Amino acid sequence: MKKIIFFIISLVLFIPIALFAQTTKKITAAPLSSQTSACIGCHKTYTPGIVEDWLKSLHSKTSPEMALKKKPIERRVSAEKFDDSLNKVAVGCYECHSLNPSKHKDNFNHMGFKINIVVSPSDCATCHPVETMQYSGSKKAHAVGNLTKNPVYHGLVETVISKKKIENGKIVQLPSSPFTQHETCFSCHGTEVKVEGLKEVNTAMGKIKVPSLINWPNQGVGRINPDGSMGSCSACHPRHSFSIEIARKPYTCAQCHLDPDVPAWNVYKESKHGNIYFSKYQDWDFKAVPWKVGKDFQSPTCATCHNSLITTAEGKIIAERTHDFGARLWIRLFGLIYSHPQPIHGDTSIIKNKDGLPLPTAFTGEVATVGLINKDEQNKRQNNMQSLCKSCHSTQWTTNHFVKLDNTIKEVDSMILSSTLLLLEAWKNNLAEGLIHGKNPFDDAIEQMWIRQWLFYGNSIKYASAMTGAPDYATFKNGWWNMTENLQNMKDWIEFKKSSKGSEKK
Amino acid sequence: MKKIIFFIISLVLFIPIALFAQTTKKITAAPLSSQTSACIGCHKTYTPGIVEDWLKSLHSKTSPEMALKKKPIERRVSAEKFDDSLNKVAVGCYECHSLNPSKHKDNFNHMGFKINIVVSPSDCATCHPVETMQYSGSKKAHAVGNLTKNPVYHGLVETVISKKKIENGKIVQLPSSPFTQHETCFSCHGTEVKVEGLKEVNTAMGKIKVPSLINWPNQGVGRINPDGSMGSCSACHPRHSFSIEIARKPYTCAQCHLDPDVPAWNVYKESKHGNIYFSKYQDWDFKAVPWKVGKDFQSPTCATCHNSLITTAEGKIIAERTHDFGARLWIRLFGLIYSHPQPIHGDTSIIKNKDGLPLPTAFTGEVATVGLINKDEQNKRQNNMQSLCKSCHSTQWTTNHFVKLDNTIKEVDSMILSSTLLLLEAWKNNLAEGLIHGKNPFDDAIEQMWIRQWLFYGNSIKYASAMTGAPDYATFKNGWWNMTENLQNMKDWIEFKKSSKGSEKK
Amino acid sequence: MKKIIFFIISLVLFIPIALFAQTTKKITAAPLSSQTSACIGCHKTYTPGIVEDWLKSLHSKTSPEMALKKKPIERRVSAEKFDDSLNKVAVGCYECHSLNPSKHKDNFNHMGFKINIVVSPSDCATCHPVETMQYSGSKKAHAVGNLTKNPVYHGLVETVISKKKIENGKIVQLPSSPFTQHETCFSCHGTEVKVEGLKEVNTAMGKIKVPSLINWPNQGVGRINPDGSMGSCSACHPRHSFSIEIARKPYTCAQCHLDPDVPAWNVYKESKHGNIYFSKYQDWDFKAVPWKVGKDFQSPTCATCHNSLITTAEGKIIAERTHDFGARLWIRLFGLIYSHPQPIHGDTSIIKNKDGLPLPTAFTGEVATVGLINKDEQNKRQNNMQSLCKSCHSTQWTTNHFVKLDNTIKEVDSMILSSTLLLLEAWKNNLAEGLIHGKNPFDDAIEQMWIRQWLFYGNSIKYASAMTGAPDYATFKNGWWNMTENLQNMKDWIEFKKSSKGSEKK
Repeated sequence: MKKIIFFIISLVLFIPIALFAQTTKKITAAPLSSQTSACIGCHKTYTPGIVEDWLKSLHSKTSPEMALKKKPIERRVSAEKFDDSLNKVAVGCYECHSLNPSKHKDNFNHMGFKINIVVSPSDCATCHPVETMQYSGSKKAHAVGNLTKNPVYHGLVETVISKKKIENGKIVQLPSSPFTQHETCFSCHGTEVKVEGLKEVNTAMGKIKVPSLINWPNQGVGRINPDGSMGSCSACHPRHSFSIEIARKPYTCAQCHLDPDVPAWNVYKESKHGNIYFSKYQDWDFKAVPWKVGKDFQSPTCATCHNSLITTAEGKIIAERTHDFGARLWIRLFGLIYSHPQPIHGDTSIIKNKDGLPLPTAFTGEVATVGLINKDEQNKRQNNMQSLCKSCHSTQWTTNHFVKLDNTIKEVDSMILSSTLLLLEAWKNNLAEGLIHGKNPFDDAIEQMWIRQWLFYGNSIKYASAMTGAPDYATFKNGWWNMTENLQNMKDWIEFKKSSKGSEKK
Repeated sequence: MKKIIFFIISLVLFIPIALFAQTTKKITAAPLSSQTSACIGCHKTYTPGIVEDWLKSLHSKTSPEMALKKKPIERRVSAEKFDDSLNKVAVGCYECHSLNPSKHKDNFNHMGFKINIVVSPSDCATCHPVETMQYSGSKKAHAVGNLTKNPVYHGLVETVISKKKIENGKIVQLPSSPFTQHETCFSCHGTEVKVEGLKEVNTAMGKIKVPSLINWPNQGVGRINPDGSMGSCSACHPRHSFSIEIARKPYTCAQCHLDPDVPAWNVYKESKHGNIYFSKYQDWDFKAVPWKVGKDFQSPTCATCHNSLITTAEGKIIAERTHDFGARLWIRLFGLIYSHPQPIHGDTSIIKNKDGLPLPTAFTGEVATVGLINKDEQNKRQNNMQSLCKSCHSTQWTTNHFVKLDNTIKEVDSMILSSTLLLLEAWKNNLAEGLIHGKNPFDDAIEQMWIRQWLFYGNSIKYASAMTGAPDYATFKNGWWNMTENLQNMKDWIEFKKSSKGSEKK
Repeated sequence: MKKIIFFIISLVLFIPIALFAQTTKKITAAPLSSQTSACIGCHKTYTPGIVEDWLKSLHSKTSPEMALKKKPIERRVSAEKFDDSLNKVAVGCYECHSLNPSKHKDNFNHMGFKINIVVSPSDCATCHPVETMQYSGSKKAHAVGNLTKNPVYHGLVETVISKKKIENGKIVQLPSSPFTQHETCFSCHGTEVKVEGLKEVNTAMGKIKVPSLINWPNQGVGRINPDGSMGSCSACHPRHSFSIEIARKPYTCAQCHLDPDVPAWNVYKESKHGNIYFSKYQDWDFKAVPWKVGKDFQSPTCATCHNSLITTAEGKIIAERTHDFGARLWIRLFGLIYSHPQPIHGDTSIIKNKDGLPLPTAFTGEVATVGLINKDEQNKRQNNMQSLCKSCHSTQWTTNHFVKLDNTIKEVDSMILSSTLLLLEAWKNNLAEGLIHGKNPFDDAIEQMWIRQWLFYGNSIKYASAMTGAPDYATFKNGWWNMTENLQNMKDWIEFKKSSKGSEKK
């Protein structure tokens, strides 16, 4: 019965669809598939924002065949050939939402078409296989498991986002809810999107049945998709414009890499690079492939240093494109507690420190020997990064910068060790219960002061040094001032706690 | 004598005025009134910024008659007819600053013209009556009284902004000054602008007499004007460009709705909506009326969801324009202490909680039964908002979002209740003096920790949930981390205070 | 041998240089000198970002001779005549990097040319002598000495940025490293760039010898250059575009003048001026000289009020250009502890307070009598600033604003005095060791709370008042709320400390 209704609706919609297809033929250079025309026939009325967004995308104006006509260095696709069904039509609704249906637990019959709700990296790989492959080995792709499977990280997450109730004047920690997990840590890291049968939803077109998705919507970088793949391209190329411009502008990375724990965005905003970006970006070309230093842009954004294919104005390659976001990084400034070489693989559960924990450093700073890249690989990556710096800076300028960064990393790590020693004193005097008591090391006040030292203040100083900017941020806003003041507060807390414990006993 | 001087000045100015009128005839499509030409004759020299600002406005280029020639859905005016004196001329200085003179205590004789200093919403209603009417019933219009007449809110204001002196090692709270009131709370809420006779001011044209205004300048949303009206259109359509573009861009709302207490702007900046806005706004049309989703903009600003007339690209209405800023809201996330349904009327003094106080919730969270909208009205408004979401998001996406928001509101309210219980413990143990002692509940350290829980951290988490963004903000910056840490600090404060009170006694 | 290699390289590069010179002849209006063509021949390959940046600059398109053809009010150069060697060629690499070689300790033989690494204000003075002269007398030019030579400021710097280790449960302060000095305080204030002989660096062109620079790179405003001059024009006109647009946009000042200690940028962002700037700047002309109020811009940026040559649309001068950044300021809102009149000279070491210290106020607020401008000079400067305000605001509006500011300064200073009295109580009770014990007044917890009062919160309130914006910032973010709460915390700290000291004794 419902299928008949849909059929009638389809008939009624035939005329506008045909008209729309004609109109859009003028707008887009590539023809639409009949399926995509049908999608748009309804969706331009029911989700007009999506259709208009897509109409402004390159996807709506190009076909794989047209994309292949560009010189390799100018291509946005990395596949060399395409199925006939895709080759000559614009990259429309159906072309993306119908791929690999057998793998998609979220596939359903929608108005006579077999549609996936979620488009996954494995689907995008149809045209962009190199990017998908690079991404799949990165820490971003493994961002869910790296958080949930690591007992230390997981303990920190739960301490922070769990509900707390008061019982007899004491704080009792209750489990966190999936909803809160979803909109805090896992909003960036990604959720595991699960399908729980079909459910009826009430739309403007009447009631329809759709796969019921749990932990949805989410565009976290490590989202586990209903087809089993990991990642969400939409995290950086949002929604239906799939814009390279948006991904290259710093606001995209800024959604997750920001103050107080990963203050890349805050440091950038207050740096000379940021200053020039904000003053001049409107004159730059954020769509050019390759991206030509000085010509297309006069100051780097995040993507310049970490991802994009960068060349000189004449086309000489300075850095190859990568979608493994750690590929140009040799050291990891944040993560649990001290700095350390980058992990070998995106799945960081293989790391082991001297205490056998899956952490890149020990509690007192010793770097793990298993799972981190070696000195040669570190040098190779740092040279890669330096060649980007040298596009605009002299060799001495660049070298001096990296020497200064090395020193800062050491100083910050030593400040964090000082904080750790105070924490140990609190534990040893039973002023707080932590690791040495087999208890949660994150829930006492002094433990939380200690967390601030490395997760907030230490990171700020190291990022400011690494990105050569934000001196005031590293001094008074979230850096040396705070680390100094907080260290003093840790000491006072120990004194006050000893005093109040003493007076309790009397 | 002075009038003669002014007459001579006017004569001397005749030639440039005439020339200017000729020049501007070319620039503007509508002719200037002779009065406005006279204003500009002097003011282009003495306040050139104002004249140039106005020359860039639509007001300088259009007359009411021209405005009425547009289709109703494209109109910026809501009046249907106009006085002859206004109908055919550009909307210039005199057209606005001369209206309703008998009501304006700030009206004065200025160079032979009867001029009001302040242009009020009642004056703007000449052309925009629907907007003025909607606004006048809103919480924004009543923002002054809602703060000054409520004893609880007023107590918080005074505690925060009053001067404090030290007497015998104790902190003594002195009354706040009108100047500081003016540039803190009442800068956003609005001041009561009073006229205290005339005073002589020293201008570049010599000494002139003007009405002496108290609590001026101010463009707070609830400003009480010298004609008795409430509000300042200039709060969002600033100065003499009266720009719809400025009002639609998020920087306008951001002046008051920001971190730490009303962090709408901070959440927006770190959300996907914000990311797309910052990356792409330069390609959008912020002046189009109606505002077409996906076509004129690809991501919402504050105005999209809360105010603007939104249609599809083809002109199908998705949401009607409203200048009652709560009209599309069902729940109130901030305000004193816990979440609650929106007030029925902008004047919130009619609300009563179970303790008889004019507050939307009781101290321990129970929602007031008088003065708040009922379930039907809540559903109606939420459906209105959801239809905006569904322009770009599927029904399931939208529904899941609202389910998650409902849960977050509950969790945050329960966390705040936990904090309230600790505060009660401090009061009961006489570690701080508050409500149960008939004393100021806002001036002890633990009371201020408790305020942080709901005014800063709880609001941050709820806003981040509602606007589907800023997960790191809700986690580490100003949300769960801080609420957890601060709860622990409340507990420690109680312990330290008991200890120090104990040692005092000994 | 090396010179021969360079000669061969030069020969090989001859053809591309010649071709490039031809190409750029079309791009630039002024011809390149042969030396600059040679520079570009290599550097377009080895530092392409620099060359492209310069190609977008006015320097690449104009010669001094062309610059002098403009009317004086429209000129960007202040010299009246130029050497023949410079007069007719574009302002290229060699024209700037070869000046005054005998004074430059960083001069070296680079591929057959005598090149300075650092271009100093004395070099820029070749074309911009008035700007250099104004700047050289300003506090910015003396920013290094003002920090290092003042024992009080120096003590604060060291307390904040020094490494700390834990010995027997006590915090021990170690000296700060030059690297950390360099990337915190002195990143903004400037470093002393020293030359330590030559060193070999490994470039893409092979190994070359360059002067070895210490404390480099740095673009702090008071940088001490290898030619002995003070300042870095690149601080505000960054890199090789030397852009007036960048200097006039607020992001430039924002690199150093920001939250929490000098929150000009934060206040601007949340002000009405900022709102209009962010909403409309893309329509403004940031390159126009003179800068015409209302026409070229509708809202001020930092440069408008503090530096630029501002005229009406018809060219009537409202304010003269100045590169002495204090020239339009009468009062100093920040600096050590209380507000005070502006210093007479950029070198503030000549100031003496009543205790003989080189500070503008005494510990309890009395203003220094030596080294600060008198009342007449204050009035003159305030009138200068007011004439800028009056371009867009009425006389009464402007006057009322300044009356309010005066009151706020007094209230904040009295709040800081209250905090100082609590600190004195702590010192007198030996709860902390400070000035009266001849000890560091910045390293105890209560001392650091006291610093927050004036350095963070007081400054925020005063800046918000002065710039007529950011009421929420001054209320809840970093102002009255924090000052009130922190005062209470100082009192509680004294109580807890007394208690713990008491229990120690028992």
